[in-house]
Amino acid sequence: MTATAPAAARATHPSAELAAFAAGLRFEQIPPAVLRRTEDLLLDCLASILAGARTRPVQAIERYAVAMGPQSGPSEMLTARRGTSPVFAAMVNAAAAHVVEQDDVHNGSVFHPAAVVFPPVLALAQALGRSGKDLLTAAVAGYEVGIRIGEFLGRSHYKVFHTTGTAGTVAAAAAAGRLLGLDANVMLHAFGSAGTQAAGLWEFLRDAADSKQLHTAKAASSGLAAAWLAREGFTGAQRILEGPQGMAAGMSSDADPARLTDRLGERWALVETSFKYHASCRHTHPAADALQEAMRANGLRADDIERVVAHVHQGAIDVLGPVTDPRTVHQSKFSMGTVLALIARGGRAGLAEFDAALQDPAVAEFRDRVEMRLDADVDAAYPTRWIGKVTVHTRDGRELHARVDEPKGDPGNTLSRPEIEDKALSLGTYAGAATADEVRGLIQTVWGLERAERVSALLPSA
Amino acid sequence: MTATAPAAARATHPSAELAAFAAGLRFEQIPPAVLRRTEDLLLDCLASILAGARTRPVQAIERYAVAMGPQSGPSEMLTARRGTSPVFAAMVNAAAAHVVEQDDVHNGSVFHPAAVVFPPVLALAQALGRSGKDLLTAAVAGYEVGIRIGEFLGRSHYKVFHTTGTAGTVAAAAAAGRLLGLDANVMLHAFGSAGTQAAGLWEFLRDAADSKQLHTAKAASSGLAAAWLAREGFTGAQRILEGPQGMAAGMSSDADPARLTDRLGERWALVETSFKYHASCRHTHPAADALQEAMRANGLRADDIERVVAHVHQGAIDVLGPVTDPRTVHQSKFSMGTVLALIARGGRAGLAEFDAALQDPAVAEFRDRVEMRLDADVDAAYPTRWIGKVTVHTRDGRELHARVDEPKGDPGNTLSRPEIEDKALSLGTYAGAATADEVRGLIQTVWGLERAERVSALLPSA
Repeated sequence: MTATAPAAARATHPSAELAAFAAGLRFEQIPPAVLRRTEDLLLDCLASILAGARTRPVQAIERYAVAMGPQSGPSEMLTARRGTSPVFAAMVNAAAAHVVEQDDVHNGSVFHPAAVVFPPVLALAQALGRSGKDLLTAAVAGYEVGIRIGEFLGRSHYKVFHTTGTAGTVAAAAAAGRLLGLDANVMLHAFGSAGTQAAGLWEFLRDAADSKQLHTAKAASSGLAAAWLAREGFTGAQRILEGPQGMAAGMSSDADPARLTDRLGERWALVETSFKYHASCRHTHPAADALQEAMRANGLRADDIERVVAHVHQGAIDVLGPVTDPRTVHQSKFSMGTVLALIARGGRAGLAEFDAALQDPAVAEFRDRVEMRLDADVDAAYPTRWIGKVTVHTRDGRELHARVDEPKGDPGNTLSRPEIEDKALSLGTYAGAATADEVRGLIQTVWGLERAERVSALLPSA
Repeated sequence: MTATAPAAARATHPSAELAAFAAGLRFEQIPPAVLRRTEDLLLDCLASILAGARTRPVQAIERYAVAMGPQSGPSEMLTARRGTSPVFAAMVNAAAAHVVEQDDVHNGSVFHPAAVVFPPVLALAQALGRSGKDLLTAAVAGYEVGIRIGEFLGRSHYKVFHTTGTAGTVAAAAAAGRLLGLDANVMLHAFGSAGTQAAGLWEFLRDAADSKQLHTAKAASSGLAAAWLAREGFTGAQRILEGPQGMAAGMSSDADPARLTDRLGERWALVETSFKYHASCRHTHPAADALQEAMRANGLRADDIERVVAHVHQGAIDVLGPVTDPRTVHQSKFSMGTVLALIARGGRAGLAEFDAALQDPAVAEFRDRVEMRLDADVDAAYPTRWIGKVTVHTRDGRELHARVDEPKGDPGNTLSRPEIEDKALSLGTYAGAATADEVRGLIQTVWGLERAERVSALLPSA
């Protein structure tokens, strides 16, 4: 034991290391591929916000923000197209980002980073006139911190707590704190104030209540508040994550502190994040991708197909099996037949396609020619890999096979920029929250973000 | 099993019963003694807010509120003497209420109700022009709900979670929801949205960080938000307290749902709340009261006293024993000798007395003539009863004894109105946040609250 050991120990506990990483992250340090992916994720998030803007829970939160916040301000509520203070813009945009369930997900941490990271960063960048590079750097800090905290809190946490709400609060603080330029010590105080506000319980699922939107709204706004307060000299716990009365002590039984600092600056967890490509239950995605591949490889049209067998894992049968005659749009997203019918007939299964599908007799007719069958190989690989496998029987008597080893949107099979633009156009115009021209403008803004000296309003005001 | 059993079961689960009680509570139903005590607790809370108004953590939260909230509004930040929207007034006043540690406490639930109940109720009453009766009714609803939730969550919860932050969020929602006139169903949604935001970890204690003020600020403002959102149609979990993924499932291992609905409308938990009388560590209070009694009964002045033996429980020795030569004001509040010196010399140990005591040689001289001694009877009764016992040796050779079975401020030995007024004057003027005349005006406003048709500003604006 040397005389310097205690000081070294203080400087290197996991909360402090993670805070120091977030505070110290520099734009130049982030590989270009990570920056490009950050732009992809940002566009995906903005489009998700627009798609959710006019839903009932988001409108309720927006009315709350209008009642409690200032009547104008530098930060943009993308829903109402009006300015407000950073905290309310972050709150409303975060609520909207998660509602149509098309926003990104990090599989290993079961955490939706975009919804809680981009809204506070955008709101502060607009309020403080920061650059596009600042925005991107802060967002990367938020992803790297949030994903590692989600992994740290583990499966026991996720059983009762909505990780996007809990880890998301600290992720939002890290992102906001980086944008505010907090140093490592002040960032650690921000972590403390964020972690002690971290909340979000799954109990609402039982009643299909609106809490999921409240969780992202609160994570984004409470994280922003924690960073702002830290800048004002407000102090927080030094070991809020792993301390004996910290987040893991209270809300996890299998927390692994080593995950908090896993290869900081070397492993870029952000690029492990998946995009959601189809607007349906994730269990339908592998087969949808395999059918698309079978049709592409063999030059098939929908009318060429007699029937489809989707070879699936047991979980898909458990969740999707009961849905044989979907009666609502939401239910149809859990119907393998409907999803494959949309893919076969139009090549896409987005929000608008599902809205139209319910009344379309051609979709119903195709749906009834789709069958799910348990596949031992697919089942054995799950959940590490989500393999898609279909057999297509054509009207001219052929039996064709296709297999996709990673569903579209996962890191190994990520979306191309044209596909991301396409999804953004679809989401952005879905509920009339923006016109196609406005979304095209948004796309150009995001692709040019690195060169923007100041982040200003993304959309024309209302 | 009758056909109506499921419906009856739905109507009577604990979360629903408690929400229905809070929503249905009527002014006429509350006994006059409970109303008078509510006024006492309100005055005590307002005075605590003024005493804490100019502290560093509260000023930081106030700057945050000014940056993020509207520049004016109907609800009063008592700290800055300016108007804002209800949520920011609730946030700042709640932060200030708890900081000098002179606010009330409910022993059984280890919960500080005033700090999280009165700020949202006051802010909404001012914003909506509600009557004094409405304010009092809503506050009682908040106390009854919060105390029962604190008892329900149990000791295991308190080991890691700050009950005032967690139970306090739902207490604030109950109080705000009652003031907003939510019906039982909507109140239950407010409970759901409050409970899923409930947070607050003790980890900050290790670093003496500012989180305690954030906990009350967030409980008050998040609870208010939950009630407001419920009025806007935002839904929440039906069984957020006792459900399988609710608050107790995530944050307690000894929760007792029967406590949630314990004698609703018959037992008034509010009157079990203790006032804090002396501005020192609670372990000093029994002996302070006993010394005061010995001096009163025997007509003693400080100069008559040769030495004092305080007969205490072991916990008092553990906490206070090490403090023999206090070097800071905060430390002096943990010095039995200092506390008894202040009582002997001036009859009070308030905030101002402690500030002056540190430099006063007469206090130091008396302090060194005080001794603590473990007492078997006192120790056996603790913590159910906090007995105060002293032996006073006078300069003229007498040995006098005194005993107080319940420290001043506890329900069985509560403060008289003159004592409450006296404490309010002392707290309210302590840091210059208000003048004595202003506090006297505040006292008259609170004593007349039941007759106020509209709750308006309590203090002249800045």
